[in-house]
Amino acid sequence: MNRVEMAHGSGGQAMQQLINQLFMDAFNNPWLAEQEDQARISLSTLTAQGDRLAFSTDSYVIDPLFFPGGDIGKLAVCGTANDVAVSGAIPRFLSCGFILEEGLPMDTLKAVVASMASTAQEAGIAIVTGDTKVVQRGAADKLFINTAGMGAIPADIHWGAGQLTPGDVLLVSGTLGCHGATILNLREGLGLDGELRSDCAVLTPLIQTLRSCQGVKALRDATRGGVNAVVHEFAASSGCGIELTERGLPVKPAVRGLCELLGLDPLNFANEGKLVIGVERQAAEAVLTQLRAHPSGKEAAIIGEVVERKGVRLTGLYGVKRTLDLPHAEPLPRIC
Amino acid sequence: MNRVEMAHGSGGQAMQQLINQLFMDAFNNPWLAEQEDQARISLSTLTAQGDRLAFSTDSYVIDPLFFPGGDIGKLAVCGTANDVAVSGAIPRFLSCGFILEEGLPMDTLKAVVASMASTAQEAGIAIVTGDTKVVQRGAADKLFINTAGMGAIPADIHWGAGQLTPGDVLLVSGTLGCHGATILNLREGLGLDGELRSDCAVLTPLIQTLRSCQGVKALRDATRGGVNAVVHEFAASSGCGIELTERGLPVKPAVRGLCELLGLDPLNFANEGKLVIGVERQAAEAVLTQLRAHPSGKEAAIIGEVVERKGVRLTGLYGVKRTLDLPHAEPLPRIC
Repeated sequence: MNRVEMAHGSGGQAMQQLINQLFMDAFNNPWLAEQEDQARISLSTLTAQGDRLAFSTDSYVIDPLFFPGGDIGKLAVCGTANDVAVSGAIPRFLSCGFILEEGLPMDTLKAVVASMASTAQEAGIAIVTGDTKVVQRGAADKLFINTAGMGAIPADIHWGAGQLTPGDVLLVSGTLGCHGATILNLREGLGLDGELRSDCAVLTPLIQTLRSCQGVKALRDATRGGVNAVVHEFAASSGCGIELTERGLPVKPAVRGLCELLGLDPLNFANEGKLVIGVERQAAEAVLTQLRAHPSGKEAAIIGEVVERKGVRLTGLYGVKRTLDLPHAEPLPRIC
Repeated sequence: MNRVEMAHGSGGQAMQQLINQLFMDAFNNPWLAEQEDQARISLSTLTAQGDRLAFSTDSYVIDPLFFPGGDIGKLAVCGTANDVAVSGAIPRFLSCGFILEEGLPMDTLKAVVASMASTAQEAGIAIVTGDTKVVQRGAADKLFINTAGMGAIPADIHWGAGQLTPGDVLLVSGTLGCHGATILNLREGLGLDGELRSDCAVLTPLIQTLRSCQGVKALRDATRGGVNAVVHEFAASSGCGIELTERGLPVKPAVRGLCELLGLDPLNFANEGKLVIGVERQAAEAVLTQLRAHPSGKEAAIIGEVVERKGVRLTGLYGVKRTLDLPHAEPLPRIC
C-alpha cells in the first residue's frame, strides 16, 4: 500500500494494520502498547511533579508539510509541548489525532510520523493515545494533525499573564519571526532559501532554567500572531499597558530584509520556538543572563515594559511612540 | 460576519473576537476563563476520584454535520467522553480543536458549538482548552473537530480486554447499528427517515451503574467498525477466541431492514452509544439485570462468550457456525 486509502480510517483490518505497523512501532511506549480506548497514566507520576495539571491542545494545518527547520509532525509535538511548558510544567504525555486525505503518499505519512516520534523522544514526551481518520480526496488538504498535551505544574510556580503589573519588564528568548518568514519565503518562492529556517523547537529545557529564577511572572510562546499577539494578550489579562522598544527587538537580517521587502512587521510574524517573558524589573538582568547562558536563548533581549496607561505602543528607531494595533488577520494563513 | 473567514484562524483580532464571543461564552467555565495557553486543573480533584488518569482523543469528520439524534458537536463530546468512560473513569475535562473551512456559515458553527456545550454540560464535562484553525475554501470539508478527554479511574477498577478468559460472557448494552444505519440512510437518501435515529449519547451514567457490579472485566464502546471490531480487539488482547450468537443480537427492525436491503451486517455498523461488556459467567445475569434497569440499557442482551479456540465466530439463526472476519473496510466512510 503506497497511498492512504479510505479503508485506513474505517475501523476495519486496514486501519488495524496501519496502527500496528506504523503508529505503535514509531511511538512505542507502554501506555500506547496497552491498546485500550484510552491511555491510563498513574496519577502519582504527575503528583510527584506538581499540584496542577497543565492541559492544552492545538491542531496543525501548516502548508507546506515540510519546510527548512521542521515539518508538520515536529511542529505538532513542539507547539503543544510549548503551550504546556509555558505554565512551568514539564510536558510528558501527548495525544495525537490524524486527519488524512485519501491518496496521501504513505511515505509522506511515514516521514511525518517519524519526525513526531523523534521530536517527542528527544523531549521526553510519550505519545500515549491517538486516532486516525481518512476523508475523501479533496475533503482535506493532505494531512492535518491535532495534539493535546499535559504535564504537572510544580506547586511553587504560578506564572500567569494576570500577575503582570506596571514596572515589569518584557523579554524575548531570541530572534523574532523566523518561522513565519521561512513559510512565507517558501510559499511565495522569494528565493531566500539558504538563510531562513524555522525556529520550531521544544522549549522545555530553556523554560526549566527559569524555574529557579526569582521574579519571573508570566511566560508565553509567541506563535500565530507573533510577539504582537502575546503582548496584546498580556495587556488584556493584566489590565495594564505595554510599551515595546523597536531598537530592542532581535530580528535576523534575512527576516528583516524579507519584512522590508514586503512591508510587513516581524512583530506580527509567527515563531515556533520563542518565549515572551514578563519579569519584575529588578530581576530582568538576571533572567536575561540566565536565558543567554542557554543555547536556545543566546539572542534573548529586553524588548519593553508593562505600564499603567492601557494599550500597546512601540517606540520606533527615532524615538517616536506609536500605537501598535493587533492586526485583523496575520499576513499568512496556515502558518502552523 | 456571517461566514468563517481566514482571519478567524490567524491569531489577530478576528480570532480573538471569535474566541471571546462564541467559545468563551458557550463553554463558559473557570479553567477556560483563565485564558492562558493551557488549562490548569487541580490534581487533587483528580486524585480524589481515582489513581490513574484516563486520557483519550478522537477527531470527528462526520458527513453530514447534522443527523437525526445528533450532530458533529454532540458526537465530538460523546465519542471522546465514552472512550474515557469505558475505563471506569468519569470523564471530566475536554480539549477541543476546530478546523474550519473558509466560508462555513457562522450559524453552522454556532449550532455545533451550542450542541457541544449542552452535551458537555449535561454530562458534567468542562471544555477547558481549545484551538481554532481556518483553511482555505476546498482545503477541508466544512468542519472537523478534535477532542481529547480525561478523567480519573477509581483505584478498585481494572477493566481491560487483556483480563478476558475462556468462559466469560459478552453483553451489549442495546440495539446495534443505529448510528451507522442513520448516516447511511441519510447519505444515500433511502427514505427511512422517521424510523432511524443515531444512538449518540454519553454513556457515563450507564457505566457508573456497572462500577459496583462484581465480575465485570472489560468494557468498550462499539463505534467505527461496530461490535465486530470490538470483539476482534477483545480476541487479540486476550489471546482467546470469541463466539457470538446471531439470535442474541438486538437489532431494531428499521436497521435490520436496511441491512437486508443492502446486504450489510449490523455487526459491522457503527454505534455511538453502545457498550460491549465482558463479564464472568456467573455475573452475566446480574449485569444484564443491572443494565436493563437503566433507561440507556433497556435492550441489553447477552451476545456471546469468550472461548479457548482462537478466532471470532458467529452461530447463525439455523445453528451453523461460521468465521466472522473483520472486514478490510467499514461500509461507510466519515461515519464519525
